[in-house]
Amino acid sequence: MLAIHWDAVNGWGQPNIKPYGPLQLDPSTTVLHYAQTLFEGMKAYRDDGGKVTLFRPDMNMKRMNNSAKRIALPTFHGDALLELIKELIRLDRHWIPQEPGHSLYIRPTLIGTQRFIGVAPPTEALLFVICSPVGPYYPNGFKPIALYGTTEYIRAAPGGTGAYKLGVNYAPGVLPQKQAAKAGYAQNLWLHGSEHYLTEVGTMNMFVVLRKDDGAHELVTPPLDGMILPGVTRDSVLTLAREHAAGVKRLPNLPEDLVVSERQISMNEIKEASKANRLVELFGAGTAAVISPVNRIGYLGEDLHIPTGKDGMGPISRPIWTELVGRQTGAIPSDWSVVVSE
Amino acid sequence: MLAIHWDAVNGWGQPNIKPYGPLQLDPSTTVLHYAQTLFEGMKAYRDDGGKVTLFRPDMNMKRMNNSAKRIALPTFHGDALLELIKELIRLDRHWIPQEPGHSLYIRPTLIGTQRFIGVAPPTEALLFVICSPVGPYYPNGFKPIALYGTTEYIRAAPGGTGAYKLGVNYAPGVLPQKQAAKAGYAQNLWLHGSEHYLTEVGTMNMFVVLRKDDGAHELVTPPLDGMILPGVTRDSVLTLAREHAAGVKRLPNLPEDLVVSERQISMNEIKEASKANRLVELFGAGTAAVISPVNRIGYLGEDLHIPTGKDGMGPISRPIWTELVGRQTGAIPSDWSVVVSE
Repeated sequence: MLAIHWDAVNGWGQPNIKPYGPLQLDPSTTVLHYAQTLFEGMKAYRDDGGKVTLFRPDMNMKRMNNSAKRIALPTFHGDALLELIKELIRLDRHWIPQEPGHSLYIRPTLIGTQRFIGVAPPTEALLFVICSPVGPYYPNGFKPIALYGTTEYIRAAPGGTGAYKLGVNYAPGVLPQKQAAKAGYAQNLWLHGSEHYLTEVGTMNMFVVLRKDDGAHELVTPPLDGMILPGVTRDSVLTLAREHAAGVKRLPNLPEDLVVSERQISMNEIKEASKANRLVELFGAGTAAVISPVNRIGYLGEDLHIPTGKDGMGPISRPIWTELVGRQTGAIPSDWSVVVSE
Repeated sequence: MLAIHWDAVNGWGQPNIKPYGPLQLDPSTTVLHYAQTLFEGMKAYRDDGGKVTLFRPDMNMKRMNNSAKRIALPTFHGDALLELIKELIRLDRHWIPQEPGHSLYIRPTLIGTQRFIGVAPPTEALLFVICSPVGPYYPNGFKPIALYGTTEYIRAAPGGTGAYKLGVNYAPGVLPQKQAAKAGYAQNLWLHGSEHYLTEVGTMNMFVVLRKDDGAHELVTPPLDGMILPGVTRDSVLTLAREHAAGVKRLPNLPEDLVVSERQISMNEIKEASKANRLVELFGAGTAAVISPVNRIGYLGEDLHIPTGKDGMGPISRPIWTELVGRQTGAIPSDWSVVVSE
């Protein structure tokens, strides 16, 4: 694991790569009381030739610094941390599975470590990075999931922290998820406001595909309005779809009549589209599952069925997923893939 | 310190009172990533005769269990935990200062301790209680504070966790507080919705006193609508004021024409009352400061001045504070004061 201490007087200390082991934390440590914690999730892939790569790690470093600012934890030099993470991965490269869909999950974490029972900007912090081999999210083909359209609880609100990858966004979602599971749904579909705008799915960003009046496909995702996490997978899906739509880089099997929209979309619009047979697909997007197709939404006591392709994915998500995973694993060369070791 | 482990298979383990010392936490421990933490704040007082008391500790036990349910941490037998806390205080009673305004601050904390990088209900938890001597919040008389009427950030929202004493409610407030301090205000006045309803002050509940058309005093605090922390001091202020207003237990020097309202109150209403000379006082209420008078609110670029009494407190807060502190320290006998040791 990698560990770097910080304090308000001396700034960042010497980075230390050391054997994985427990942290010694005083019971008054601020993170244990006031939730001063943030993290990132990244994956390292190893190809057949043994080459190890990361996927768009600069985005994680940038977001991690934004998260730090939001809860008054120290910021850092993103490129320098990335070099240290690469060093850690090179040392741990024998842990990276080479099987298809496998990777090394990397978890950079930053916590407030001041020993002080008072609510204040921490004067001490610890940045640490741990790793764990992970298998594919869907080892036996895609399994579309059912969502519970959640109106009793929120994930985020304007003026809150939904746009940052902070620990505080996660603990409150566990009970709603448990309740959704009990009712037969895999995840919460977080709805916002009296219009019940769709925001996120569980801990993933969300996309909807609609057929427009002229027959074109519209790929819709909520805008980064302060409530939506700026996901790396979200940005990658949008970028691939936009480059395809603009004719800059056409993706195989993706309809050419694609329109990309970052806009609000309400449950009412989803219901109307469904009635009019204009709802094409709906999916979650995130680092863990990459793309997670949805086949059902429980909403105000009724179940709304969402079309899925015959292998679980729809006509828009499938070609985007293929390109995305190709770029992630390095099978499709791109500058999104950053070499850690040859 | 007191420590009790819990796991999903065996339930609560043997309580252990042991010397204060660091916790050994694996870097993957859930509280460090997903903020599965909640706490309470209580005070133990020691009187001239050496008698040690707690103030309404049953309310803390009840609220702590409610907090636990909200983030899927284990609940516990409140009376049993209270007996253990009393035992801890008896062992640490030499730490309780006897000077006026001093007390032993008690911090029960419950954290998720499962070693697992996944968002789920923790299967392991640790409940611990630590103590620290504290002096009076205002050692040299009351100093009224200035508040920054905060519209850029929120503390809570409907469907969120504002009504629970969870760590997640605190980290996001640090940056807004820092910004308020930079602008010359001591704390945030958290406003809600387009009406800018007043909700809380920093980490305290909030009360306003208005003169009504008929000359009566109205003591207003926002209702427990899911966004407001059900504070022990809040409840105590309301109870004392209501018993006085009903004639059940009159408090010395408190105007008899008191009306108690739990209702929403907007910044516009505050401004109008100020203009009409009907704004009597505004104060925060919480375990740390007990009552914290306010003399100024910065709101949308303007400063609104709030009347304060000549020693900082107003005509309603002063007599309530006197009764409350008397009951807390045991100087005024009441069943709110629970004996720990004679």
